[in-house]
Amino acid sequence: YRKGFPEAIFCPGKTTDQIVQIAKKLHEVSDQNVLATRAGREVYEAVCREIPSAEFNETSRTIVIRKGVQRSVGNILVVSAGTSDLPVAEEAAVTAEAMGNKVERMYDTGVAGLHRLLSQSERLQQAKVLIVVAGMDGVLPSVVGGLAASPVIAVPTSVGYGANFGGLAPLLTMLNSCSEGIGVVNIDNGFGAGYLASLINQAGI
Amino acid sequence: YRKGFPEAIFCPGKTTDQIVQIAKKLHEVSDQNVLATRAGREVYEAVCREIPSAEFNETSRTIVIRKGVQRSVGNILVVSAGTSDLPVAEEAAVTAEAMGNKVERMYDTGVAGLHRLLSQSERLQQAKVLIVVAGMDGVLPSVVGGLAASPVIAVPTSVGYGANFGGLAPLLTMLNSCSEGIGVVNIDNGFGAGYLASLINQAGI
Amino acid sequence: YRKGFPEAIFCPGKTTDQIVQIAKKLHEVSDQNVLATRAGREVYEAVCREIPSAEFNETSRTIVIRKGVQRSVGNILVVSAGTSDLPVAEEAAVTAEAMGNKVERMYDTGVAGLHRLLSQSERLQQAKVLIVVAGMDGVLPSVVGGLAASPVIAVPTSVGYGANFGGLAPLLTMLNSCSEGIGVVNIDNGFGAGYLASLINQAGI
Amino acid sequence: YRKGFPEAIFCPGKTTDQIVQIAKKLHEVSDQNVLATRAGREVYEAVCREIPSAEFNETSRTIVIRKGVQRSVGNILVVSAGTSDLPVAEEAAVTAEAMGNKVERMYDTGVAGLHRLLSQSERLQQAKVLIVVAGMDGVLPSVVGGLAASPVIAVPTSVGYGANFGGLAPLLTMLNSCSEGIGVVNIDNGFGAGYLASLINQAGI
Amino acid sequence: YRKGFPEAIFCPGKTTDQIVQIAKKLHEVSDQNVLATRAGREVYEAVCREIPSAEFNETSRTIVIRKGVQRSVGNILVVSAGTSDLPVAEEAAVTAEAMGNKVERMYDTGVAGLHRLLSQSERLQQAKVLIVVAGMDGVLPSVVGGLAASPVIAVPTSVGYGANFGGLAPLLTMLNSCSEGIGVVNIDNGFGAGYLASLINQAGI
Amino acid sequence: YRKGFPEAIFCPGKTTDQIVQIAKKLHEVSDQNVLATRAGREVYEAVCREIPSAEFNETSRTIVIRKGVQRSVGNILVVSAGTSDLPVAEEAAVTAEAMGNKVERMYDTGVAGLHRLLSQSERLQQAKVLIVVAGMDGVLPSVVGGLAASPVIAVPTSVGYGANFGGLAPLLTMLNSCSEGIGVVNIDNGFGAGYLASLINQAGI
Amino acid sequence: YRKGFPEAIFCPGKTTDQIVQIAKKLHEVSDQNVLATRAGREVYEAVCREIPSAEFNETSRTIVIRKGVQRSVGNILVVSAGTSDLPVAEEAAVTAEAMGNKVERMYDTGVAGLHRLLSQSERLQQAKVLIVVAGMDGVLPSVVGGLAASPVIAVPTSVGYGANFGGLAPLLTMLNSCSEGIGVVNIDNGFGAGYLASLINQAGI
Amino acid sequence: YRKGFPEAIFCPGKTTDQIVQIAKKLHEVSDQNVLATRAGREVYEAVCREIPSAEFNETSRTIVIRKGVQRSVGNILVVSAGTSDLPVAEEAAVTAEAMGNKVERMYDTGVAGLHRLLSQSERLQQAKVLIVVAGMDGVLPSVVGGLAASPVIAVPTSVGYGANFGGLAPLLTMLNSCSEGIGVVNIDNGFGAGYLASLINQAGI
Ligand SMILES: Nc1ncnc2c1ncn2[C@@H]1O[C@H](COP(=O)(O)O)[C@@H](O)[C@H]1O
Ligand SMILES: Nc1ncnc2c1ncn2[C@@H]1O[C@H](COP(=O)(O)O)[C@@H](O)[C@H]1O
Ligand SMILES: Nc1ncnc2c1ncn2[C@@H]1O[C@H](COP(=O)(O)O)[C@@H](O)[C@H]1O
Ligand SMILES: Nc1ncnc2c1ncn2[C@@H]1O[C@H](COP(=O)(O)O)[C@@H](O)[C@H]1O
Ligand SMILES: [Mg+2]
Ligand SMILES: [Mg+2]
Ligand SMILES: [Mg+2]
Ligand SMILES: [Mg+2]
Ligand SMILES: [Mg+2]
Ligand SMILES: [Mg+2]
Ligand SMILES: [Mg+2]
Ligand SMILES: [Mg+2]
Repeated sequence: YRKGFPEAIFCPGKTTDQIVQIAKKLHEVSDQNVLATRAGREVYEAVCREIPSAEFNETSRTIVIRKGVQRSVGNILVVSAGTSDLPVAEEAAVTAEAMGNKVERMYDTGVAGLHRLLSQSERLQQAKVLIVVAGMDGVLPSVVGGLAASPVIAVPTSVGYGANFGGLAPLLTMLNSCSEGIGVVNIDNGFGAGYLASLINQAGI
Repeated sequence: YRKGFPEAIFCPGKTTDQIVQIAKKLHEVSDQNVLATRAGREVYEAVCREIPSAEFNETSRTIVIRKGVQRSVGNILVVSAGTSDLPVAEEAAVTAEAMGNKVERMYDTGVAGLHRLLSQSERLQQAKVLIVVAGMDGVLPSVVGGLAASPVIAVPTSVGYGANFGGLAPLLTMLNSCSEGIGVVNIDNGFGAGYLASLINQAGI
Repeated sequence: YRKGFPEAIFCPGKTTDQIVQIAKKLHEVSDQNVLATRAGREVYEAVCREIPSAEFNETSRTIVIRKGVQRSVGNILVVSAGTSDLPVAEEAAVTAEAMGNKVERMYDTGVAGLHRLLSQSERLQQAKVLIVVAGMDGVLPSVVGGLAASPVIAVPTSVGYGANFGGLAPLLTMLNSCSEGIGVVNIDNGFGAGYLASLINQAGI
Repeated sequence: YRKGFPEAIFCPGKTTDQIVQIAKKLHEVSDQNVLATRAGREVYEAVCREIPSAEFNETSRTIVIRKGVQRSVGNILVVSAGTSDLPVAEEAAVTAEAMGNKVERMYDTGVAGLHRLLSQSERLQQAKVLIVVAGMDGVLPSVVGGLAASPVIAVPTSVGYGANFGGLAPLLTMLNSCSEGIGVVNIDNGFGAGYLASLINQAGI
Repeated sequence: YRKGFPEAIFCPGKTTDQIVQIAKKLHEVSDQNVLATRAGREVYEAVCREIPSAEFNETSRTIVIRKGVQRSVGNILVVSAGTSDLPVAEEAAVTAEAMGNKVERMYDTGVAGLHRLLSQSERLQQAKVLIVVAGMDGVLPSVVGGLAASPVIAVPTSVGYGANFGGLAPLLTMLNSCSEGIGVVNIDNGFGAGYLASLINQAGI
Repeated sequence: YRKGFPEAIFCPGKTTDQIVQIAKKLHEVSDQNVLATRAGREVYEAVCREIPSAEFNETSRTIVIRKGVQRSVGNILVVSAGTSDLPVAEEAAVTAEAMGNKVERMYDTGVAGLHRLLSQSERLQQAKVLIVVAGMDGVLPSVVGGLAASPVIAVPTSVGYGANFGGLAPLLTMLNSCSEGIGVVNIDNGFGAGYLASLINQAGI
Repeated sequence: YRKGFPEAIFCPGKTTDQIVQIAKKLHEVSDQNVLATRAGREVYEAVCREIPSAEFNETSRTIVIRKGVQRSVGNILVVSAGTSDLPVAEEAAVTAEAMGNKVERMYDTGVAGLHRLLSQSERLQQAKVLIVVAGMDGVLPSVVGGLAASPVIAVPTSVGYGANFGGLAPLLTMLNSCSEGIGVVNIDNGFGAGYLASLINQAGI
Repeated sequence: YRKGFPEAIFCPGKTTDQIVQIAKKLHEVSDQNVLATRAGREVYEAVCREIPSAEFNETSRTIVIRKGVQRSVGNILVVSAGTSDLPVAEEAAVTAEAMGNKVERMYDTGVAGLHRLLSQSERLQQAKVLIVVAGMDGVLPSVVGGLAASPVIAVPTSVGYGANFGGLAPLLTMLNSCSEGIGVVNIDNGFGAGYLASLINQAGI
């Protein structure tokens, strides 16, 4: 009863062998893309020996095995401030793409350099759903939410130091945001953000 | 640039007088409904003397002043387990209604009595967006998310005792949910949940 | 005055040598099984050189040295959602078996795939005691507790990421459960869960 | 499918009227005792006007409405150290009694006066299940668990000051106990402790 | 050895009588203004009977007793987003004024309404020191810090609800800010912010 | 619009290659010093191959690339108690120097040896801004603040053990300080402290 | 087996009647002083009707009933910074006096006014045991410990606001102190501090 | 002005070279023992090359360099429950010995095996000061405090797992103890406990 998407594989805590077996089985029984998250290169190589069409994304540590028609509908915008949040931002983007959504990235912007962000406010207003990923710059979803009218999915990351406390600080920042239309997912949960964004993006379709 | 909705009034920390003035001004300048949240009955009565059409909802402590055409589009379902979560659930429901959405309630169900919940799983699957409100029964969004395919907005409440820690427990429970498609808002933030649900519900329209 | 069970050996913080000496001594003086928990393979091999009948369980990292009659009474069911919680689930199961209980496993089920869990609800209702182990799917004990009438021992695990906070999230989730008949043990404490389950399972015997 | 016990009524967050209606309905449809917890005297008086046989316990703030045969099986011992933990201890005791169990109390003992506790160790060893309630003397379940061989249900209370932090301190103390056979319930959750003790006490019956 | 400023009086925990005596003594021995914070109206009235020139500020709950030349140097700007943060913002402003600084207020602005804030960015850039006070809109200092080049003193307030956790959320938000040049003071400590701002504002004088 | 200082490079989460490219570009386009923080020796060597004038500070793990006139104005004093806080103290000092400030160090002093600190109180009183860095001796900023009249920037560090909790203890200690004129930055944030001190030190210039 | 001191009465959670009965019984059976802590005036008056020699201390909210020889040995010094910590400081002082110790007070000093403290360093060095009580000025025990050579008992209080977090901040500050010879008791636990100081003060006697 | 004891060397964060230099200098200028804590074997070997009389204790990771008369006065008893707490217990014992105290150890006892502890209660009552070290068995100081009349110094350790939270659980347990006469030091702070015990033990001498 899931919306046209087979269960993804969350790799941590599984042996390479287990992952390969699950991937093969899902690829055979389903007519949908298969997605594995938090996968190392060695896991990818093992999967690849069995399913040569598997694709690896180094930054997000995801494996995608495509099947059937590849859609690219709607308009999801992934926003991120810093280089170190890219793995989580890309996990979100790859997940959303694997679920058949058109995804754009805006990775060159933060609140300290507010003018750069403001100069792109038109793009922020055109997206149908926004995913905002931030660890040190946890205020970003509030600012984006103040500029855009569409739903914003905020993803705190555990990147940072000191009073970041493993992502607790951006998590609380995002939950307390005064800008309306923001929903928060777990710290570092790019997969969950991409999945939720896909549901929303395809809601009216 | 907000989606056809004037800024709501958050009453705590404002004098009755200030609230009445803001309500009057918003009602005059805008062609939209005006919503005041966390309002006591005495605040409502003061508003009513100036704007007789103002309506009060005792449970959610909201005031709504209607204007123009009243739409009721789409299909938002608000789910809640216990009597004590009703104020927050109703804040969400009233907010969504005031923004022109069709809202249904399912307030008679919790995880301890799982069979009652399962017997309604069809209704859960038909909603376009779900809002799940829970304080003591913080696992409810996970279970609902496992049964429904649409986006779920989870609202932890501060209702409970002991290791509830003012809503921290259901907040963490919801953020860690393994069911996909769940976004979380601040503890007790029924308004935020209703607003986000409205954006999603009207996304494809 | 302990119920027919010699003190177990908790390996962390002890040298291999110390563990071997304690195991030998306990094995000699007692007419009961000896159990060592959190043991690496190298510890097992050292024990094995002295006591060849020692058995090792790789997943749970336990060593069991059997002695006398091996009972298998009652009916304890260990439930777990994910691959990564298996070490703790198996520590509970092995402990309970070493104490003379009949133990069944149900490791293929979680709340996200609720239908799989529901299809087994008869087995849940037949157990005399249930142990439910979960890290990311911390809501599992609540759901199991809502389906079963027997006592449930809930074991939070530190497996997860983000707002799991080292097991704090599933711990709070389980303590706040609205389903009745649930007692909670320390995070990752499979041993304690197995021990308590054994006491309950053998209470009426 | 519950073990011969109708759902109890948790009063906070419900109007007196709602409580009376629920109590009446449960009393009519069920052939079991009805229990209301966290009830004030005024609630009791309202219930009493409709169901004159209702009984009130001032200390535990519980209402019991008896029906059918009143059993008193097995042997549950409730241990508590201080006057201020009595409300929670009594909530546990009354709950267990209402479920048909024989319940004894040992309320005159704490760890600071260890000799008094030791002088009663025989009684501790004879109980089939023990409930230990403590807020300031959070170490009590460990000590009782070291003396008794039966399962211990530990109930932290929010009574105390300073680094008690609303019951967090005794909760952590109890979860970390080195004595085996201890399960913990939520802070102040006397009802949950009584319910779980009843399930265990009647397990072999 | 303090910079031309007598010790202020922190009223909580002191009797009205004690406050009046301290105020009188400080007013006599010093040639500087005297400031009392967290003072109720009844305290003010008691002080006034002894020192008729005492002035009361209802919002900030401060009493000021002026003496000697009243300077008004430099340029401190106090920024705040919401009505409910005004008591803390005013405590900061009154403290800075009593120490001889010129103080401006900008109380009509928040991140949700970003355009209003941006339209005033010139004023933000002209201030020599900025004090930014926020409870629910904890991201405000980051945004202001991104627009202004002068030092920013960030004051989290305990105003808010849910995951605000008594000011912990805005405190962490402010400490993690990516905008440079921000120093944070204790939650609700308007006095400390005003004092520090005064030291900075008069540093080059 | 920043006060004559190009954006510094925060190295963690960036590849050596990315850092070298950013450093080269900033060095070319700007007429200011370039600063990279949290840099390992291997990063420095890679930068050095491209920009031979780059300087490395082993203790603070900073790279500075100088350009144009090197000022050394005002008077910033960096105070630290222990050997283990030196990396953070030096990050603050190097940052302030790279921004054109005169910086002095006082690294031989702590509260346990209070007399050593008191014997230098004249130096404490002469500084225009003070930066106080402490992890285990978190009370140092309070004591320094009680001796000096200028603004104090307090930097908690994560150095310590036990109830230091990753810097939380000195952070709370510093926020609660009763000495006036103290602003706090994030745990381990030497860069932020140096930057803020520079703004204050050059405020009157 | 206690060192010549009957168990004191902790009043919270006990009815006035219970307190009077306990006080009477202890006064009859023991040849020692009786001490009741956290007592209101109405409790005192009830005790006084039965035992007219009972003495009340308004600030510390203690009742003392004297008996036999009243010693006053050794030399305990209680240090406190602010008016609002006096109740806890006095609870410590009264407890120590009731146990037969000579007690001095130094209540006029804090770290912000360091010179006042230093001018009394001789008195600090002459005490045999020191009790230092502080809520907002949590650094005081460290400073006193740096000046005195005798054991210091540090008592954090819950007095303060903001990031004091109910006494957590001074508690952590005191536990992390770098000055040697400091032991910490629970937040607000003046009684425990007085008791421990008495044991130490009388150790060599 | 310290009581006949030179400053000890805390090794973490110092280079081997720095440690050797400090040790040499202290050994030359002082007529007292020198103590280095948290020292690895390689550090010891470097010290030994310069000062051949240096002694190493592998378990506690301490180096002692003796000088002058070696006293052994009074009677300090160090109590610990488990093998894994030995490093901290030994750090306390070695510190106290180096300061001229007679130290006894009782390392074979815990609360789960209460009878073993009770059988030694005479020894507990004879000590002049007790140091109780515990991580998993955090209730031990309470039980010891209930049996002994002398001052107890409680040392929580970070040894444990799950809800131990790095020593937070035993720390809170010890602070909340209902047994009188207990002072707590920082988690893992064996040195501080030994130092404080020495001050108390030698107080009457
Ligand atoms: N990166 C991720 N973070 C959180 N959940 C994930 C992630 N990737 C996959 N999942 C979830 O994990 C489930 C698969 O878990 P498993 O059966 O253990 O492989 C999927 O259905 C998703 O719900
Ligand atoms: N119940 C509520 N919880 C959280 N935010 C609210 C609530 N009601 C209104 N708001 C927000 O508060 C804003 C109005 O704040 P104010 O200008 O202080 O009245 C609205 O634009 C909403 O964003
Ligand atoms: N995995 C475990 N988790 C918690 N406690 C354990 C575990 N395994 C053994 N124990 C307890 O540790 C005790 C043995 O501790 P020790 O004497 O240090 O070996 C046993 O009696 C059990 O109570
Ligand atoms: N609102 C405030 N918040 C924090 N500290 C304050 C406040 N008002 C005054 N103070 C400080 O409290 C000191 C006076 O405290 P006291 O001697 O108890 O009146 C002053 O010197 C200030 O440092
Ligand atoms: Mg928006
Ligand atoms: Mg779903
Ligand atoms: Mg059940
Ligand atoms: Mg036991
Ligand atoms: Mg700026
Ligand atoms: Mg100062
Ligand atoms: Mg000292
Ligand atoms: Mg004792």
